[in-house]
Amino acid sequence: MSNAGDGTIGVGMVGHAFMGRVHSQAWRTVHHFFDVPQAPRLAVLGGRDLDRTKAAAAKLGWDSVETDWRALIARDDVQIVDICTPGDSHKDIALAALAAGKHVLCEKPLANSVEEAEEMAEAAAAASAKGQRSMVAFNYRRVPAIAVARQMVAEGRLGKIRHVRAQYLQDWLSDANTPMAWRLRKEEAGSGSLGDIGAHIIDATQFILGEHLTGVSALTETFVHKRPIAGDPDGRLDDVTVDDAALFIGKFTSGAMASYEATRFALGRKNSMRLEVNGEKGSLAFDFESMNELSYFDGEDADETAGFRRVLITEATHPYVGAWWPPGHIIGYEHTFTHEVFDFLTAIQNGTDPAPSFADGLQVQKVLGAVEASAGNDSRWTPVS
Amino acid sequence: MSNAGDGTIGVGMVGHAFMGRVHSQAWRTVHHFFDVPQAPRLAVLGGRDLDRTKAAAAKLGWDSVETDWRALIARDDVQIVDICTPGDSHKDIALAALAAGKHVLCEKPLANSVEEAEEMAEAAAAASAKGQRSMVAFNYRRVPAIAVARQMVAEGRLGKIRHVRAQYLQDWLSDANTPMAWRLRKEEAGSGSLGDIGAHIIDATQFILGEHLTGVSALTETFVHKRPIAGDPDGRLDDVTVDDAALFIGKFTSGAMASYEATRFALGRKNSMRLEVNGEKGSLAFDFESMNELSYFDGEDADETAGFRRVLITEATHPYVGAWWPPGHIIGYEHTFTHEVFDFLTAIQNGTDPAPSFADGLQVQKVLGAVEASAGNDSRWTPVS
Amino acid sequence: MSNAGDGTIGVGMVGHAFMGRVHSQAWRTVHHFFDVPQAPRLAVLGGRDLDRTKAAAAKLGWDSVETDWRALIARDDVQIVDICTPGDSHKDIALAALAAGKHVLCEKPLANSVEEAEEMAEAAAAASAKGQRSMVAFNYRRVPAIAVARQMVAEGRLGKIRHVRAQYLQDWLSDANTPMAWRLRKEEAGSGSLGDIGAHIIDATQFILGEHLTGVSALTETFVHKRPIAGDPDGRLDDVTVDDAALFIGKFTSGAMASYEATRFALGRKNSMRLEVNGEKGSLAFDFESMNELSYFDGEDADETAGFRRVLITEATHPYVGAWWPPGHIIGYEHTFTHEVFDFLTAIQNGTDPAPSFADGLQVQKVLGAVEASAGNDSRWTPVS
Amino acid sequence: MSNAGDGTIGVGMVGHAFMGRVHSQAWRTVHHFFDVPQAPRLAVLGGRDLDRTKAAAAKLGWDSVETDWRALIARDDVQIVDICTPGDSHKDIALAALAAGKHVLCEKPLANSVEEAEEMAEAAAAASAKGQRSMVAFNYRRVPAIAVARQMVAEGRLGKIRHVRAQYLQDWLSDANTPMAWRLRKEEAGSGSLGDIGAHIIDATQFILGEHLTGVSALTETFVHKRPIAGDPDGRLDDVTVDDAALFIGKFTSGAMASYEATRFALGRKNSMRLEVNGEKGSLAFDFESMNELSYFDGEDADETAGFRRVLITEATHPYVGAWWPPGHIIGYEHTFTHEVFDFLTAIQNGTDPAPSFADGLQVQKVLGAVEASAGNDSRWTPVS
Repeated sequence: MSNAGDGTIGVGMVGHAFMGRVHSQAWRTVHHFFDVPQAPRLAVLGGRDLDRTKAAAAKLGWDSVETDWRALIARDDVQIVDICTPGDSHKDIALAALAAGKHVLCEKPLANSVEEAEEMAEAAAAASAKGQRSMVAFNYRRVPAIAVARQMVAEGRLGKIRHVRAQYLQDWLSDANTPMAWRLRKEEAGSGSLGDIGAHIIDATQFILGEHLTGVSALTETFVHKRPIAGDPDGRLDDVTVDDAALFIGKFTSGAMASYEATRFALGRKNSMRLEVNGEKGSLAFDFESMNELSYFDGEDADETAGFRRVLITEATHPYVGAWWPPGHIIGYEHTFTHEVFDFLTAIQNGTDPAPSFADGLQVQKVLGAVEASAGNDSRWTPVS
Repeated sequence: MSNAGDGTIGVGMVGHAFMGRVHSQAWRTVHHFFDVPQAPRLAVLGGRDLDRTKAAAAKLGWDSVETDWRALIARDDVQIVDICTPGDSHKDIALAALAAGKHVLCEKPLANSVEEAEEMAEAAAAASAKGQRSMVAFNYRRVPAIAVARQMVAEGRLGKIRHVRAQYLQDWLSDANTPMAWRLRKEEAGSGSLGDIGAHIIDATQFILGEHLTGVSALTETFVHKRPIAGDPDGRLDDVTVDDAALFIGKFTSGAMASYEATRFALGRKNSMRLEVNGEKGSLAFDFESMNELSYFDGEDADETAGFRRVLITEATHPYVGAWWPPGHIIGYEHTFTHEVFDFLTAIQNGTDPAPSFADGLQVQKVLGAVEASAGNDSRWTPVS
Repeated sequence: MSNAGDGTIGVGMVGHAFMGRVHSQAWRTVHHFFDVPQAPRLAVLGGRDLDRTKAAAAKLGWDSVETDWRALIARDDVQIVDICTPGDSHKDIALAALAAGKHVLCEKPLANSVEEAEEMAEAAAAASAKGQRSMVAFNYRRVPAIAVARQMVAEGRLGKIRHVRAQYLQDWLSDANTPMAWRLRKEEAGSGSLGDIGAHIIDATQFILGEHLTGVSALTETFVHKRPIAGDPDGRLDDVTVDDAALFIGKFTSGAMASYEATRFALGRKNSMRLEVNGEKGSLAFDFESMNELSYFDGEDADETAGFRRVLITEATHPYVGAWWPPGHIIGYEHTFTHEVFDFLTAIQNGTDPAPSFADGLQVQKVLGAVEASAGNDSRWTPVS
Repeated sequence: MSNAGDGTIGVGMVGHAFMGRVHSQAWRTVHHFFDVPQAPRLAVLGGRDLDRTKAAAAKLGWDSVETDWRALIARDDVQIVDICTPGDSHKDIALAALAAGKHVLCEKPLANSVEEAEEMAEAAAAASAKGQRSMVAFNYRRVPAIAVARQMVAEGRLGKIRHVRAQYLQDWLSDANTPMAWRLRKEEAGSGSLGDIGAHIIDATQFILGEHLTGVSALTETFVHKRPIAGDPDGRLDDVTVDDAALFIGKFTSGAMASYEATRFALGRKNSMRLEVNGEKGSLAFDFESMNELSYFDGEDADETAGFRRVLITEATHPYVGAWWPPGHIIGYEHTFTHEVFDFLTAIQNGTDPAPSFADGLQVQKVLGAVEASAGNDSRWTPVS
């Protein structure tokens, strides 16, 4: 694959809604803070509507637009294809991009079904042999506090893990009058809170522990079955065809017991991705609403002065943090994406496969599948296979 | 039933370990802060070992001792029998006390099996008709913050409830070298973390919602199967025959989804009984480690200034609180028992059945039973019947 | 001094309002949890109004009453005189009790002026030589978390102290319609927020550091100059003659810089006594509203995992705590008084002078005096001499 | 003043250390999130050393460099001069830039003395008449939570303000071996913690209240008088000639009482800028380490459910926030600068004077001057005049 001779690497991004906006900021920003071999060049933005895509490109800083993602993939000035569309188009775009010899960054969840994800993971593995890199955008792995958590577990500082608690709580659907959206249609989104936010806590906990869930027992529920169509003059309603909430309990390879909850009906919790891990030697707790903090209990502290520490993850020695500001000067949501594209660009340069790979994305998809299967089968224990 | 003519009511308490100590403080204290028709008289303390029971009675303020609980029940100066023994003796003592015409306060969980609990609930119902009062000592209902939570739900301030999260996290067994104890033997304790602390969060959440769990899907686990026998010169080990941790998900009558976790292996969490309820109109959160606080999100606050409120439950208008200190002058664990005996004495005076009744205790026992059944049956959904 | 032959020691307490209620609970409770040589006997309660004092004695558990505190002091069955009256009567009662050979526990602040306090300290010193013990009831020294803080500083775990921040924030006077009370009259209370709550943070910080303030620069203010007379049918107002708020900055012997604020107008802060200490090697923070917690930053922790620890001061090895409940089962406001009388009874038994002594109370009074002097003299630096 | 015909406005920035890095990010980013009439063009970066400035320009995205700030000011492609140098050069650069007809954004504190600041404010006022805009970079006014606080006070939601508490606590100088830096030399920095971080809390509190401090009583201290010269092979020390900590108490025009503390020796506090305001009707609290949160106590809530609310300032209706991410997806330190340049660009477009003006900067300088004067005069009350 040839890159532009000017020391940059061309990016073509499909989609310019929420994810497109934040990915754009990452591509624009990464080389100003991190050492990357080739600065990204925001070559082309893909979108279905020409006028809206042009307006988005102007605002977000993209050089040109395409309304057909196949044309975007075909362009010579595109070396990286960044997929920011709803889940129903991930597979087609990713397979085409890989076939065209491009590197691929794909939003999560990887696909809308295990079958799609399997096809994508196979294609990514084949492309890897040809030097193409693929990555799933589980951006929360790049929250510095979560990266620290993963390091601490890997170093054995928590000892054997016994408990995991993971909750991803939002409330934007709590009001039954909140209008219909693509995230509430199964054919586009694949699932509801499960794939949208549940996928994040599945990936994050498996990442932190460095192991996999082996089985689950689950409940899912839809609280509001019909919602208003936004702007519909006749006030018609549309069917919600996904879960509003998903709860499950499970076990990790090592025997650690885990509970999960994903909901967009937890009134008052705006983006509360809460993780807690208890090991034989230490415990950790995290809440994304305070993403610059990690709570850490060191079991080896003397009882008299032991307690959960509020560690500000803003030291230069913390992962990613040295690139930013002095201690106590916090970073935000978008920075996780900047870290993500930094790691992706670095992997491309180094010729190594970045993580989470499409295979990792497939494994998360299998957990999502097991949750749905258990919920549909009397909550029976369902292996993740 | 005749009371002493001196305006007091005689109490006979069986057991003088942890629960006996805190019940004693409640019986000694209640009339100094609350208006009760008859001050309790600490008539007799029951224990198996005469010397140790005498020493305990002297320290705890009891007038006399009995080493046979049947003798204690038989005494004329005892109108109330307070059962603070391990679960395996609850049924026999309670049935005998009821048969002898006494009022009965019984520690939780009510019994070691659904069958025992059923027998006790029947006896209590029969005795009620004769004017005898029975109550299970789920003291956490008498945490003022939990009483406020119950009021708020009952008044409809949270609207329809969608989510319940309940965790009771301790860590005193996290160290595999912590010695064996009666709470770890099935024949005495009935179950492990499930009955010991899980029972509390089952009762508390059902109390707050004013409704019951209809079914559960569960996992239980024993992490440490053998523990040292305290003081054994040969360093022998004994078998742990109960669960170390219990996790389950369930549903309430109204459709609210719930998750529960009870463990004594959550390193760093000392007595963290955490409850969270999300309704259509408001949310509540509570942690016993900060028992004088209730977090409240009012969904009707303007978005710009809405947020979880840290409400100090120390106002004179809060349940029980007016009897104590000015705002911000907090109370502690033992006060919940003082509130409990206040409510019990008041019910005796009023001739009304106090809550939680033995029937309520039986219902919790059924949930415990369903959890164990599900955990033993591939986590399958198990109705609470 | 002779005690009753029954192994108890007789207490006569003057005053039965807020302080009298909480002292009563301490006297009733101490021997049930702590090993004291002689259990206190609640011999006699003193109050001006016979009926109200009789009612209080019945409720609070006192054996008899006196309406003249001189008669109370004169009784043979009184070995300890406990002074729970407003500040304007402390000196007379204390001097008389000491002259009568009694031990004296006196509420804080010790007196309404430096001159009074000097007289009292002299009398206490003279009585000490005769075996009589005197103590000022700065109960916050007996908050276990504050006792731990003192230990940690004394052990050098914080290194040289550089900063002290102390605030005592309440809000019960924030509403200008809150009625007049004795605490708002200079002739009874001596001063306002300064002596009432400012005295506590002066004593607590000097206790924790183990050293004294050397000088201060101060501002005081009265926000509401007239308040309604409670129950006055004509709605008349009375003059507030004390400070509503007092702010000052100062230095400790060692050079540590300190700031203090005492106010009853901090809307939303109910009893927020907040202390913070920064040393070369560690820092501590405390808020009475969460009195079972101490925040501790250990400067020797590795930067990556350093952070303020929320230490639950509920371990059996923490001061006073072993007498109560298991870890995480918190205690409350009244317990600090139980600890106080335990220490007082122990000192009586051991024949040692308890702390804080009347001399300590005098030193606090000198700080209060310096604050008032500075505030009245253009905030000029005023030595504490 | 002519702008480039391409719809951009040219910026020349002097200085490329910490402040230069964060200002660069703001200039690069603002137009991608906010609607600005003219996107900033990063025309030229000024620095003393050619190689280092070239390297910084390449990294930070500036088109060209100048090693003489006079040359930078003289360039036709520069309409805005952004001053990110130490305080000792602010006056000269600002006066020259204003004389050359440029808009000026100047880092805080405005100058190293009241005299310098007066000269600058006069020049800015004169330039304003010619259509040139000047602003001091008190970026914390652009923390959304602080902007909300200001709105709430302005709307009367807190009622009359009685108390202000402001602390800016860092710990990077707590270690006596931390090497010497320009911020520790009076001739460059003007003052120490006082001007560096104290200036921020003075400006922020005056901004929130919408009024000024009328006088102060102060203490300053230098804890470590000599520090190692970084990289000096002979291990020589250099003299610290500024304050390490500054404490003062003061009053606002309205009579509100205030206390301030600025220190870089508060071990464990990394960037804890803490503000608290108590009014007759409400209270607010803020800590920059959790900059996306504002604590709010509404005095009109019913006592039973009143409490400090943790308001996440991440709603689209909060100031600046609508430009960023959904609720609960937090922003960081650098965003405050993006907001700042947005407001500055908007003011330039609208032909209105932005705030804080140089006159506002002068007023803060007068407070700094009064603090130093009081500290040097026995802490005597010193009017801010």
